[in-house]
Amino acid sequence: MEYSAVPLQRLIEHFRRIPGVGAKTAQRMALFVLSEPKEEAKDFADAINEAVDKIRRCRVCCNLTDSDECPICKSPQRRRETVCVVENVESLMAMEKTNEYKGTYHVLHGVISPLDEIGPDDITVKELLARISADGVSEVIMATGSSVEGELTAMYISKLLKPLGVKVTRLAYGLPVGSDLQYADSVTLTRALQGRQEL
Amino acid sequence: MEYSAVPLQRLIEHFRRIPGVGAKTAQRMALFVLSEPKEEAKDFADAINEAVDKIRRCRVCCNLTDSDECPICKSPQRRRETVCVVENVESLMAMEKTNEYKGTYHVLHGVISPLDEIGPDDITVKELLARISADGVSEVIMATGSSVEGELTAMYISKLLKPLGVKVTRLAYGLPVGSDLQYADSVTLTRALQGRQEL
Repeated sequence: MEYSAVPLQRLIEHFRRIPGVGAKTAQRMALFVLSEPKEEAKDFADAINEAVDKIRRCRVCCNLTDSDECPICKSPQRRRETVCVVENVESLMAMEKTNEYKGTYHVLHGVISPLDEIGPDDITVKELLARISADGVSEVIMATGSSVEGELTAMYISKLLKPLGVKVTRLAYGLPVGSDLQYADSVTLTRALQGRQEL
Repeated sequence: MEYSAVPLQRLIEHFRRIPGVGAKTAQRMALFVLSEPKEEAKDFADAINEAVDKIRRCRVCCNLTDSDECPICKSPQRRRETVCVVENVESLMAMEKTNEYKGTYHVLHGVISPLDEIGPDDITVKELLARISADGVSEVIMATGSSVEGELTAMYISKLLKPLGVKVTRLAYGLPVGSDLQYADSVTLTRALQGRQEL
């Protein structure tokens, strides 16, 4: 692409690396950054540098944080005896948005996936086990996804935890609120039936 | 959002500023950048800084470039007597991908839009006029969009150029190649009929 300058191509390539960003979107994003006031674009670069330099994993729950412990682990309002195990930071953020959960989290940063050669040692299972006795954890809520890997990871961890006398639960599967029964897929419907509750 | 660190929020906000990027996408992008190897993320920041510092408008055609003149204006293979006037760099890139056009460009960096208080002085009309005699331009191809503003801009510029003895043309409107007549909107179809050519 000889028609555009090398520094521009370089910036486009970086946007292109982000999953879900195609060639045209990357181009549009790079040109947007260049169309902004210079200080704004410089601040963007600075924000990347700052995040990369300061953000690390929380010593307790492996959430991303800029201090030793994340705000959730530090908060006296959160129950440390209850731990919700999530695959990634996005899941944690989604859970926090409910404003319902008052326990703490544990971020696995992945799921066990034999096909991708990701084993328990590649995610933060060890860190989770270390918390169980240290924090006096009484309940672990498995909130990994419903993919084969998510289920496998939930099973694997629950087998490790049960002998330690910890109650292990799983998020409920069922119909999404506001959805129509006729549009539900049969797997979801089967799970909704299995998990039916008395009124 | 007390659950995530300030430097992470700052980075998410920057992605959020890009048009078309919503809250969740921005979050996903920021977390992707942090999940990359540190050098890669640092290189992204560096790419932004380099682009902002080096990229400027080509002295001749206002395309973005890192030198005085853009590669197209510098190329001896391109006819400087033919100028294709485009709204923005994205349009130039799309045109270049055809590998058909051998003339030069002129990037307006916008369109005349009275409602948004964008007049001829806010886009690079002056620079275009300056080239006409300097480069001995014989044909100007108006390739602004088919929006009201794009048409207005094409009209305005052609009125300025015609007294200078320059041939002003407009890209053809018609059916997109590969499309079905039954799915064409009536405005496009009307234009295709008006622009019909003898076989």
